[in-house]
Amino acid sequence: MKKVEIQKALAQALKDIRREKTLAGSVTNTVTMDFVANTQLAAGGAAAMVFMVDEALGLADVGASFYVNAGTILPPYEDTLPQLGRHLQAQHIPWVLDPVGIGMGHIRMESLKGFRETPPTILRANASEVIALASYWGLDTGGSQGAVQGVEGQDPVEKAKLAAISLAQHANGVVMVSGEVDMITDGIHLAWVSGGSPYMQKVTGFGCALGGLAAVYAGVTKPLTAALGASIHFKLAGARAEKEAHGPASFKVAFIDQVANLQSQDLASASIHWEEA
Amino acid sequence: MKKVEIQKALAQALKDIRREKTLAGSVTNTVTMDFVANTQLAAGGAAAMVFMVDEALGLADVGASFYVNAGTILPPYEDTLPQLGRHLQAQHIPWVLDPVGIGMGHIRMESLKGFRETPPTILRANASEVIALASYWGLDTGGSQGAVQGVEGQDPVEKAKLAAISLAQHANGVVMVSGEVDMITDGIHLAWVSGGSPYMQKVTGFGCALGGLAAVYAGVTKPLTAALGASIHFKLAGARAEKEAHGPASFKVAFIDQVANLQSQDLASASIHWEEA
Amino acid sequence: MKKVEIQKALAQALKDIRREKTLAGSVTNTVTMDFVANTQLAAGGAAAMVFMVDEALGLADVGASFYVNAGTILPPYEDTLPQLGRHLQAQHIPWVLDPVGIGMGHIRMESLKGFRETPPTILRANASEVIALASYWGLDTGGSQGAVQGVEGQDPVEKAKLAAISLAQHANGVVMVSGEVDMITDGIHLAWVSGGSPYMQKVTGFGCALGGLAAVYAGVTKPLTAALGASIHFKLAGARAEKEAHGPASFKVAFIDQVANLQSQDLASASIHWEEA
Repeated sequence: MKKVEIQKALAQALKDIRREKTLAGSVTNTVTMDFVANTQLAAGGAAAMVFMVDEALGLADVGASFYVNAGTILPPYEDTLPQLGRHLQAQHIPWVLDPVGIGMGHIRMESLKGFRETPPTILRANASEVIALASYWGLDTGGSQGAVQGVEGQDPVEKAKLAAISLAQHANGVVMVSGEVDMITDGIHLAWVSGGSPYMQKVTGFGCALGGLAAVYAGVTKPLTAALGASIHFKLAGARAEKEAHGPASFKVAFIDQVANLQSQDLASASIHWEEA
Repeated sequence: MKKVEIQKALAQALKDIRREKTLAGSVTNTVTMDFVANTQLAAGGAAAMVFMVDEALGLADVGASFYVNAGTILPPYEDTLPQLGRHLQAQHIPWVLDPVGIGMGHIRMESLKGFRETPPTILRANASEVIALASYWGLDTGGSQGAVQGVEGQDPVEKAKLAAISLAQHANGVVMVSGEVDMITDGIHLAWVSGGSPYMQKVTGFGCALGGLAAVYAGVTKPLTAALGASIHFKLAGARAEKEAHGPASFKVAFIDQVANLQSQDLASASIHWEEA
Repeated sequence: MKKVEIQKALAQALKDIRREKTLAGSVTNTVTMDFVANTQLAAGGAAAMVFMVDEALGLADVGASFYVNAGTILPPYEDTLPQLGRHLQAQHIPWVLDPVGIGMGHIRMESLKGFRETPPTILRANASEVIALASYWGLDTGGSQGAVQGVEGQDPVEKAKLAAISLAQHANGVVMVSGEVDMITDGIHLAWVSGGSPYMQKVTGFGCALGGLAAVYAGVTKPLTAALGASIHFKLAGARAEKEAHGPASFKVAFIDQVANLQSQDLASASIHWEEA
């Protein structure tokens, strides 16, 4: 994992997204789907959202990757989520899971538990959700218990370290724990990405939009590079947007503008702090 | 009802919301749920939206209050709305009802009629909707008949005065009638709050966002103070945002920024016109 | 079709919308419904969105026109879309169809095929979708085959010329093919409207919002004038907004502002390029 190789891979990924208009289809929540789609488009990719199982499988087949967000459960999700998980695994389509609202309701819980057998390429969540999912999957959390309240997490990123490593190893994938500093692990390496803005806590959907962008990156590069790329993209755009913002709504507008204006060399120049997992 | 007590309660409510990050869960419409959530977050609270009955009951239990908006009916609402009404009443959870689209469709009408037995802590609606709901509940409207067309109301706030008083007395709660000047009553007192901006009629969801904010306030203070707090918060933020706006979309951005930037002493300094109901 | 008559009709249509607050109800997708509603409101009209069949029929009866967008299918659409098509035809209510996502899923395909018997007053789509719909309806496409990928089209507007003419003649209506230059035909005349901004490709929902605005126009004027009015309104507002934009999100804000600020004489002054179909 040489620094120069990572930098090269990050820059190449963003160039590829913009050349190919990488399509990451989504089954995602109705609160933030506009924000997810506009983030994917601003970055240079393409977006499409569906609810029904036959549409989800078909959309997965025409895209490069997929984004699944459990945020607002509707009745068709009882079929859509488990069948989509199996389809993505069988077809080796890279995908990102965002277990929003974990703990609430029958369909959501059965779906999230079921993904244990068809784990995502990248899991994107806050610390509380990461700990809760690892617990539901019977994985080692180092004794931590997650405190989820509605869709908000209460725990610091650091607390989810062992749970994130366990999940990454189980999934043979990557886990992104979002917070003031993002923690990203493939179960072997651990990377910390800082930057961003406190405004990101004051606008709904920054987590969802990050997951959606990670899915676009996962359509063109390896999971660890994809997670790093999306995280750095967000942290840089957020820090730049804060300088133009007068409140949370003007911050969101400036943020999406900055997602579009960020260049591949910007990604390469960001600083990542590494440790062994 | 002394002026200085109201001012103190208003300022304290906003401080409490920002300290506690008060969570008001919602079952709300898909057109404006992003606006509702971002208003709740901007004010300092927290937001979560669900559709399914088991999730709604669970979300109600972890939050301080709840917001129910009948705007875009989906099939699960046939169970969700009546069961949620009974649950909120049984658990004494303060909640706000927004009877958007009253008059349209079977599920919406059965749900809205059914809330007669489990009335909300605060009803937030335009004049036409207030008159229509009072009629459906068999309450005194002073002979007024509401003219609802789709989701738009045609009637001046003043016309809903008797209907609002009847509803507040029946519910043992508070009714907010939104318009150029908001009318708020607990069935005994009547308060008028002015301010805001004509742009509020040119953007979808200002009524919904006001209802969602009233629910956040209702999580920390008494119903009448909560309704006044949300109304004044909106009128002040709207008046300030208008000065920065070049049209309805830049107004909406500036408005949410101002919702976030408003301070507790601003609320206390607003002028309220009182009369006996 | 004299130039001066078209100009007069366009200016009159926008004046009528603003005087009457023309209501175009919608059954539309959950990704962009906020953008559709805010565009309709900014232009001077009114908006309401529903999913259930009984609500859709009732809403159609109280509005001047209707907008149907197949973007995000939900289970009730299996009833709502075909029954709504028959109702709009039987009641002679002008309506706009946006066949987003054509090719994906059972309910969407059955609904879109079924509209062959109850065709819309105006079809609004990109070139790939126009060709695909003409193929599904067994109409002459001049041998073209549409390439739809998710919700994105791959084909230039020009390629859909014969398919658009066939569809307009079959429907005895108007077809709007959206692109860098919009192509509009009633099966006899063909009009080209240029302007706009490349940013329109970088924000989700510009196609949907255009369809929603065309529905508002169709509530006050003839189908060809309505399609021209919406297209010119968008192209002018887009060109003006681009001058104020720093990226796709600030472009969207400026665009909606400009939709509101555009005056009826602006519409009349736009240049339209005509040819015979």
